[in-house]
Amino acid sequence: MNIKEKIIEAEKRIRPYLRETPLEFSYSLSKMTGCEVHLKLENIQITGSFKARGALNKILSLKDSTSKIVTASTGNHGLGVANALSVTRKEGTIYLPQNASSAKVEAIKLRGIPVEFYGDNCEETEQHVRKLADATNQIYVSPYNDEEVMAGQGSIGVELLRQLPDLDAVFISVGGGGLIAGIASYLKAVNPKIKVVACLPENAPVMYECIKAGKIIEVAEKPTISDATAGGIEAGSITFALCQEWVDEYVTVTEEEIIATMKLVIRQHHLIIEGSAGVAVASLLKVKSQCLGKKVVVLICGGNVSEAVLKSIICN
Amino acid sequence: MNIKEKIIEAEKRIRPYLRETPLEFSYSLSKMTGCEVHLKLENIQITGSFKARGALNKILSLKDSTSKIVTASTGNHGLGVANALSVTRKEGTIYLPQNASSAKVEAIKLRGIPVEFYGDNCEETEQHVRKLADATNQIYVSPYNDEEVMAGQGSIGVELLRQLPDLDAVFISVGGGGLIAGIASYLKAVNPKIKVVACLPENAPVMYECIKAGKIIEVAEKPTISDATAGGIEAGSITFALCQEWVDEYVTVTEEEIIATMKLVIRQHHLIIEGSAGVAVASLLKVKSQCLGKKVVVLICGGNVSEAVLKSIICN
Repeated sequence: MNIKEKIIEAEKRIRPYLRETPLEFSYSLSKMTGCEVHLKLENIQITGSFKARGALNKILSLKDSTSKIVTASTGNHGLGVANALSVTRKEGTIYLPQNASSAKVEAIKLRGIPVEFYGDNCEETEQHVRKLADATNQIYVSPYNDEEVMAGQGSIGVELLRQLPDLDAVFISVGGGGLIAGIASYLKAVNPKIKVVACLPENAPVMYECIKAGKIIEVAEKPTISDATAGGIEAGSITFALCQEWVDEYVTVTEEEIIATMKLVIRQHHLIIEGSAGVAVASLLKVKSQCLGKKVVVLICGGNVSEAVLKSIICN
Repeated sequence: MNIKEKIIEAEKRIRPYLRETPLEFSYSLSKMTGCEVHLKLENIQITGSFKARGALNKILSLKDSTSKIVTASTGNHGLGVANALSVTRKEGTIYLPQNASSAKVEAIKLRGIPVEFYGDNCEETEQHVRKLADATNQIYVSPYNDEEVMAGQGSIGVELLRQLPDLDAVFISVGGGGLIAGIASYLKAVNPKIKVVACLPENAPVMYECIKAGKIIEVAEKPTISDATAGGIEAGSITFALCQEWVDEYVTVTEEEIIATMKLVIRQHHLIIEGSAGVAVASLLKVKSQCLGKKVVVLICGGNVSEAVLKSIICN
C-alpha cells in the first residue's frame, strides 16, 4: 500500500469518531492579503487539535492487538492518545514529566486514562517510556515518526480536496513534521501543482535547518510561544525525507509576528488559536504577495491555549 | 403546514449553505454537574452565531421575490442577514445606529452588503427601518418575530435529535425568544418529555417577566454582558405564546455567574463564547442537581465577543 492509499484508508478508519472540521472562509484575511484565504479549523477537532487524528489512526490500526499502549507527551499528542484509548477501549498509559501543567494532566485524566509521571522534561520522559515499552512489550506511539500517525494527520488533505478541490496553496506549521508530511503526501499525489508551504518560528526552525543541512541535525532552539512545534527531530524520522520531497517553501516568523497574528484571529474570528497555528497565519501574511488571487488554506492546527498564555497575549 | 413541518423544511433549505455544528461532549462540565453535558457549538456556525440560520431561511423562503430586504441590527442578526444576502445574491441594506461598533460595521461590510446609519440606539433604528420598509415596499426581516426566522433557528432541534436522539433536557438563553421557540417547537413535537429550560440574565429577564404577567409587557432592564438577549419583546410577538406552551422552566443568573462561566469555558474548552451563551451554561450550573445522570444539551448560541469584552473578562 502506498502512502496515498494509507491516507485514504486512515480517513475512512477515523471518520466515525472524529470531526470533518470546517473550512472557514476568512473575509478579513482575504482582504488583508489579496488571496482567497480559508482556515482549516483543527482547533475545533475533538481534543482541540489535529493530533487526535494520527493517534486514533495508529491505535485503530492495531486492531485486536492486546498489547498495552504507552506514550510520552505533555500536550496535544497525549490528549490525542488518551482520546484514542477512550474510543477504542484499549489499555494504555500517558507518561508526563513531573512539571506538566495541572490543566493538561486534568484533561487527560477526565478521559479516564491513567497518567504517570517521570523525569524533569519531555525528553527524559520519552526516553524512559521508549525503554519501558521495549522492556515490557508495550506499544510506544510516537507523536510524528510513525507511518500510521502521519497517515492519520494526512486525512486532513482528503478533507481539504473535498472542501476546496481547486486550492492553490496550503500553509502548515512544522514541528516533527508529521502533519505537513501527511497532508503534503496526499495533496501532491493528487495534484503536484498545489504549493506546500512549511511555517516555522524563527526561534525554533528545526526542520528547516535540517533540510538546509541535508540531514537531521541538532538545532539550537530559543523559547517560542509555538510550543507545539518545538523540540528536536529524532534520528531516522520518516517525516524528514517526505519534507525534502514535498515541501516547496519554508517561511519563518518572529515571536512578535506570531503573537500579533494570534490577537488578530481572536479579534476577527473570535477563535483562540495556538502559537503553532499563529505561525501558519503569520507566514501567510509574510509572503502574501506571492499568493495574490490564489486560493490558500491555512491550517489552524490547534486551539489548546492555557489561560496564562491567553492573558499574556491579550491583556497587554 | 404545521410548525414542525416548517422547521424540517427550513433545515433542508439552509443545509447546503450552513454548518451542522458539532455537539461537543464536555468532560469538565459533566464532572462538575453530575449530568452528561453536551455543548451545541453555534459559536462556530458561519457568522459566529445561530442567527445565520433564521435569516437565511427567511430570505431563501422569499424565492424569486425581487423586493429589496432591510433590517436593523448592530449585532448577530445583522451579520446573519448580511450572510443570507451574500448567499442568495439578493439586494438589501443593513441599518445600524450611529454608534454601532466599528468592528461590527466592518464585519457586515466585508460581506459586500450596504450599511446605512440612523438613530442613536437600536429602537430608533428599527422604528425607522420598519416605516421605511412599509413606505417603499421593502421586506423587513425581524430578528425573532417571524415564522420563517423562527423555523430557521428551529433547525438546531433537528440536528440535536440526529446527534443525541435520547437527550433529556436542553438549556437555551432567551431574548426575543426566536431561538427557544423554534427549538422547543420541534423537540416537543417529536418528544414532549424533553425538558426545555429558558435561561436569562437577572438584569434583563424580559421573557420571564412577560410569562409571569401572562402577556407581553415592558420590563425594566439593567445592563448585562448578555447583550444579545437584551431588549424588549414587541407586541404580538409569535414567540410569546410558544414560550408559554413549551418552556418547562425559567432560570435566571447574575452577571457574576455569567462572567465566571465564560471564563470557565475559555479555560476548559478554549472557546470564546458570548455572554448570552454564558447565561445558558451558568443556568445549568445553578440547577445541576435536577439533572443528575441526565443527558443535557447547552446551547452555545454565539461567540462574537469584542476584544474589549474579552479583556474585561480574562484580564482581571
